[in-house]
Amino acid sequence: MTESGQAALEERKRRAAQWFAELRDRLCAAFEAIEDEYTGAPGRSPGRFQRKTWKRPTPDGADGGGGTMSLMKGRVFEKVGVNFSTVYGRFEAQYASEIPGAQDDPSYWASGISLVAHMHNPRVPTAHFNTRHIVTARTWFGGGGDLTPMLAVQRTREHPNSIRFHDAFRRACDAHGADYYERFARWCDEYFYIKHRNEPRGVGGIFFDYLDNDWEKDFAFTRDVGRAFLEAYPSIVRATMYEPWSTDEKDEQLVRRGRYVEFNLVYDRGTKFGLMTGGNTEAILMSLPPEARWP
Amino acid sequence: MTESGQAALEERKRRAAQWFAELRDRLCAAFEAIEDEYTGAPGRSPGRFQRKTWKRPTPDGADGGGGTMSLMKGRVFEKVGVNFSTVYGRFEAQYASEIPGAQDDPSYWASGISLVAHMHNPRVPTAHFNTRHIVTARTWFGGGGDLTPMLAVQRTREHPNSIRFHDAFRRACDAHGADYYERFARWCDEYFYIKHRNEPRGVGGIFFDYLDNDWEKDFAFTRDVGRAFLEAYPSIVRATMYEPWSTDEKDEQLVRRGRYVEFNLVYDRGTKFGLMTGGNTEAILMSLPPEARWP
Repeated sequence: MTESGQAALEERKRRAAQWFAELRDRLCAAFEAIEDEYTGAPGRSPGRFQRKTWKRPTPDGADGGGGTMSLMKGRVFEKVGVNFSTVYGRFEAQYASEIPGAQDDPSYWASGISLVAHMHNPRVPTAHFNTRHIVTARTWFGGGGDLTPMLAVQRTREHPNSIRFHDAFRRACDAHGADYYERFARWCDEYFYIKHRNEPRGVGGIFFDYLDNDWEKDFAFTRDVGRAFLEAYPSIVRATMYEPWSTDEKDEQLVRRGRYVEFNLVYDRGTKFGLMTGGNTEAILMSLPPEARWP
Repeated sequence: MTESGQAALEERKRRAAQWFAELRDRLCAAFEAIEDEYTGAPGRSPGRFQRKTWKRPTPDGADGGGGTMSLMKGRVFEKVGVNFSTVYGRFEAQYASEIPGAQDDPSYWASGISLVAHMHNPRVPTAHFNTRHIVTARTWFGGGGDLTPMLAVQRTREHPNSIRFHDAFRRACDAHGADYYERFARWCDEYFYIKHRNEPRGVGGIFFDYLDNDWEKDFAFTRDVGRAFLEAYPSIVRATMYEPWSTDEKDEQLVRRGRYVEFNLVYDRGTKFGLMTGGNTEAILMSLPPEARWP
């Protein structure tokens, strides 16, 4: 790569990482605002995110990047984790073979944001969101968001929560590619599927990966996907957080969370990527629910 | 294989499967006896195992074997599952490459018993036990048992529970091979290790696999391993089930159970074998705790 090509690449990496950090700040602020305005738990004070930074250890003690976990245990959000990380190094030989552009040179750089929210009220769906930029011999964006209602009655594409969630992503997709929504919504359904249970994790959303059409356009799309989640999920939380719920619904939530654990530990590529690249275990497993049941 | 060789093999398979079923009955009876004698929960009646059979589905509708789950939710045993199964068919090409003797002919026959007990009282350790007989172009026995105390103060090899558990397996090992205990206890420590947490699952026990020295001797050893577990674990339950426990200890138990879930879903080969061979999901995941936390 030429010197100016290298400089341009570095500038892109800087801009992508900066966006992910900025989006993290906006999401945390949006969730804290919900904690502030909630009047349904008068005895409890509004939750606040606690941040904790970590460095990725490397075999030779070289700089391998790191990240910042933001974790909040609030009165609406029972446990919500937002991870921002920028890591770099070389893939292990075994893992490199699975990564585009890493066969000849296993060097990589990856920055991203990932979020999972588990809610006190079983009527409020769990949500996951993630976007990332990866650089090997190739560069690409990936990510998406998916909604996991805890209750069977909410687990349809026709439920108002599902419609609101999908509509936000559809608008983000339609502004960037005529076939994006259809392709990425289908990819999401295929990806977030619990094979051994023969059931979807939730009601979908979008999932995309290896997006490398045009860097500026792909980056703009990735930002719009983040904004779509920022618009949709807080509105779903506000629309449902005052709904009264029964102990049967709480039980149903805890069993559904068990399925969430199964998906994340058995199938999730982000979890696998993190554990295989020596990522921070506490950050990777922040996605697990505060409590789950297998009765 | 000659006709008489085939008949001898079938007779061995029959005897192995019969033993696993008999051991299942003895273990269930031993646990129900504990439920009966327990006087610490006067309002609750003693638990009883419920049995449920399943058939392994095959792509072409052929007979693929099946199994019987035995599940008890009692007053001492919060959730204990004992699975007995005999399955057969052909490994998927991708999986066959990992199995001894299955490279050229992916046919297999496998019978075994597997057990996990999760207890109400956090002072009573969780235990796992499994033995199995596998037939491909090769034949072998495998299995073992390991103890997972829930509380940090109990998680040492010097604790009386650990000593009792290891001593029983040591005696079984010593009767069959001078180096068995040392080898299989080390194998257990290596196998039941949660790499991403950099911590052992529990205090060990024994683990062995691909044992194919002499069929009769290996089968006798496998039976003695089952008898060792049958001797050791009920005695540990009886020794600890009346110990009073605090809510802090209950919390510690629930977090430790979360680690148990992580091990089973990320690393456990039995879970992987089951899910990869179209085993019964309900039976495979019966090992998961009734409740777990990731605070």
